[in-house]
Amino acid sequence: MNSKKSAANVIIPEGFLLSTAEAAIKRPGRKDLLLIYSRQEAVISGMFTTNKVKAAPVKLDMQRIRTGKGQAVIVNSGNANACTGTQGMRNALEMTGLVAKGLNLGQDRVYVCSTGVIGTPMPMERVRIKIPELVAGLGKSTPHDAALAIMTTDTFPKVVTRRIKIGSKTGTLLGICKGAGMICPHMATMLCVIMTDLKIGRTALDKALKDAVRNSFNRITIDGDMSTNDTVLIMANGMTENEPINGNTTSFKRFSSALSDMTYELGRLIVRDGEGATKLVEIVVKNARTQRDAEKAASAIANSPLVKTALYGNDANWGRIMAAMGSSGITIREPKTDIYFGKVRVVKNGISQGKDREAATIIRGKEVMITVDLHLGTSSSRMLTCDLTEGYIRINAEYRT
Amino acid sequence: MNSKKSAANVIIPEGFLLSTAEAAIKRPGRKDLLLIYSRQEAVISGMFTTNKVKAAPVKLDMQRIRTGKGQAVIVNSGNANACTGTQGMRNALEMTGLVAKGLNLGQDRVYVCSTGVIGTPMPMERVRIKIPELVAGLGKSTPHDAALAIMTTDTFPKVVTRRIKIGSKTGTLLGICKGAGMICPHMATMLCVIMTDLKIGRTALDKALKDAVRNSFNRITIDGDMSTNDTVLIMANGMTENEPINGNTTSFKRFSSALSDMTYELGRLIVRDGEGATKLVEIVVKNARTQRDAEKAASAIANSPLVKTALYGNDANWGRIMAAMGSSGITIREPKTDIYFGKVRVVKNGISQGKDREAATIIRGKEVMITVDLHLGTSSSRMLTCDLTEGYIRINAEYRT
Repeated sequence: MNSKKSAANVIIPEGFLLSTAEAAIKRPGRKDLLLIYSRQEAVISGMFTTNKVKAAPVKLDMQRIRTGKGQAVIVNSGNANACTGTQGMRNALEMTGLVAKGLNLGQDRVYVCSTGVIGTPMPMERVRIKIPELVAGLGKSTPHDAALAIMTTDTFPKVVTRRIKIGSKTGTLLGICKGAGMICPHMATMLCVIMTDLKIGRTALDKALKDAVRNSFNRITIDGDMSTNDTVLIMANGMTENEPINGNTTSFKRFSSALSDMTYELGRLIVRDGEGATKLVEIVVKNARTQRDAEKAASAIANSPLVKTALYGNDANWGRIMAAMGSSGITIREPKTDIYFGKVRVVKNGISQGKDREAATIIRGKEVMITVDLHLGTSSSRMLTCDLTEGYIRINAEYRT
Repeated sequence: MNSKKSAANVIIPEGFLLSTAEAAIKRPGRKDLLLIYSRQEAVISGMFTTNKVKAAPVKLDMQRIRTGKGQAVIVNSGNANACTGTQGMRNALEMTGLVAKGLNLGQDRVYVCSTGVIGTPMPMERVRIKIPELVAGLGKSTPHDAALAIMTTDTFPKVVTRRIKIGSKTGTLLGICKGAGMICPHMATMLCVIMTDLKIGRTALDKALKDAVRNSFNRITIDGDMSTNDTVLIMANGMTENEPINGNTTSFKRFSSALSDMTYELGRLIVRDGEGATKLVEIVVKNARTQRDAEKAASAIANSPLVKTALYGNDANWGRIMAAMGSSGITIREPKTDIYFGKVRVVKNGISQGKDREAATIIRGKEVMITVDLHLGTSSSRMLTCDLTEGYIRINAEYRT
């Protein structure tokens, strides 16, 4: 990857500065610290893992975000600071405290995100001394550098931007994220930080983020596991000086739609980079009896190891799709069910159409869409997933060793 | 495997005859048909998949088992006769019909079990002509031969027997089963047929089987998937001429306990032979707030791909255990939680004890016990699972191709 070239295409929203450093939390030679700073205090909104076991940084951010204000985020990769007890919380506090001191901010304006191994104390002796360097380096890193610094088993950095016009002003949204494993509905082992220079009220920002996450990060799955650290933060510093975006206006709709579009693209990047994945698979369930049935069916298919290994083997093994739906507890009537791989209908009214070979050529592509039509109602749902490969096993068997 | 030697150790219950044949449903050179016949009509009890998508043989057996009577079971491997529409049901009926005719039985005394690929029509032209051969060969096959004939991706046949004394008579229980993939709580892609020459009432037999399955086949998992074909049948032909076992008596307890013990051992064999598995893992969750919490936690750990790949990598990655429990929705308090690998307490009060290396040596064994003590109540639960390996991926990516 050429960071210069990538950086050339990416606009950083007005007033945001980035800095990265190497604290040897990960293997040597890779950046593992990122500092994001906004020259002006920003409105901030966030969504966090629903795992009952939450990492210290998640607990801390959930407290601070009640203020609705933020000005800096420190992110580290290589260590999740999860299951680390009271010392873990002290370490998270120290990380934000040192940043606050370096930037002359109130400590509660600083947020922290961590990702990596669970249960190992943060190597504070190495992190601590790097914070002055991070502060001094603000403005020297590109979004691409920032995305690289937060990677764990990701194989490529994930950066997405959008430009939108609000009244006479044009604002920028910049999102970076990391994913890779432990990705499941209701967020992922993912961190995502979004920056925008648009001016928007807190309530509107909360609503836009919630909608965006529901339609993107909550509809992706890699392995059905849910992390202790999932965090999405969005900071809006208002430096575009647009008319503030509020309520149910046209400008809110434009903002919300750009944000959803951006998080969906980030979600796709996460799934495409699923640990060991060789293909991106979109599961669409149509005409379910209820919305809940549609979601359960899509989720059951997207999370079935048997479906995912068949996809890896380029095998249109639709029987496993039927079995996954059947075990999900939804209402299903075999003699009404159709299944498509791409546009090839392999199953009509529950019966094989003898098109498994034709479907197999579709599965050989990098992107596959599987559609199930239940013919029982009008509800639909979709999920993004990937195939399950030997690569996933290798990565996860060797992650700490 | 030496079938003669194995056969020498296994007693077939009085009055049961076995026969196997090759109908080329599987790859050539492997038996794929089994016929079990009891000289006397037997009391029969069964449990079936709760998957909403049920194979034709399951639907047929569920109807017939209402009679409580049976005398023969035909089993085929290589084709599940699932998702095969009305033709599938016609084929299941024909299979039992031909057996009934050959043995001069009422058709509703004959049961059928199928396992293998879903969605492909049963090759009846090859099955049909083998049934006279099966009938003629009754008595010529050993339990070991029988278990071989029902294997799909299993790597070894699974046969377990028990001898118990009821009053002055000694009776025999013989169970054969197949498992391998798509194994999940509430039964597995498993078929299990148990034969006994003991005399027992229908109600008592139902109760004993239900208890046995709850504590064995419903507590095992390989990949979290649930099959369309799971079936456990038990036939009791009474030829031991013991005092009939009924109700809540000592002899019932003895029978029930032997049956539970036997199905637990069969369950262990299934997990040990999990597709690609290199080790058997027992998950014990103790002192949960409720029984439901204990079961959910054990199940979440046993089904987590991240836990299972770490076990494969001999990595005492207890953080993934915490994360799996946290995402299961149970009540958990990190500062109270202890985690053991074998007898090594790697986590005390939610904090790492720095014993990951010591624990790793335990994980290198063929059998690993992981205990979680939640210290929140008095409920416990356990699950048998296996590690998740490249072998699982290979087997399931290539299964049909």
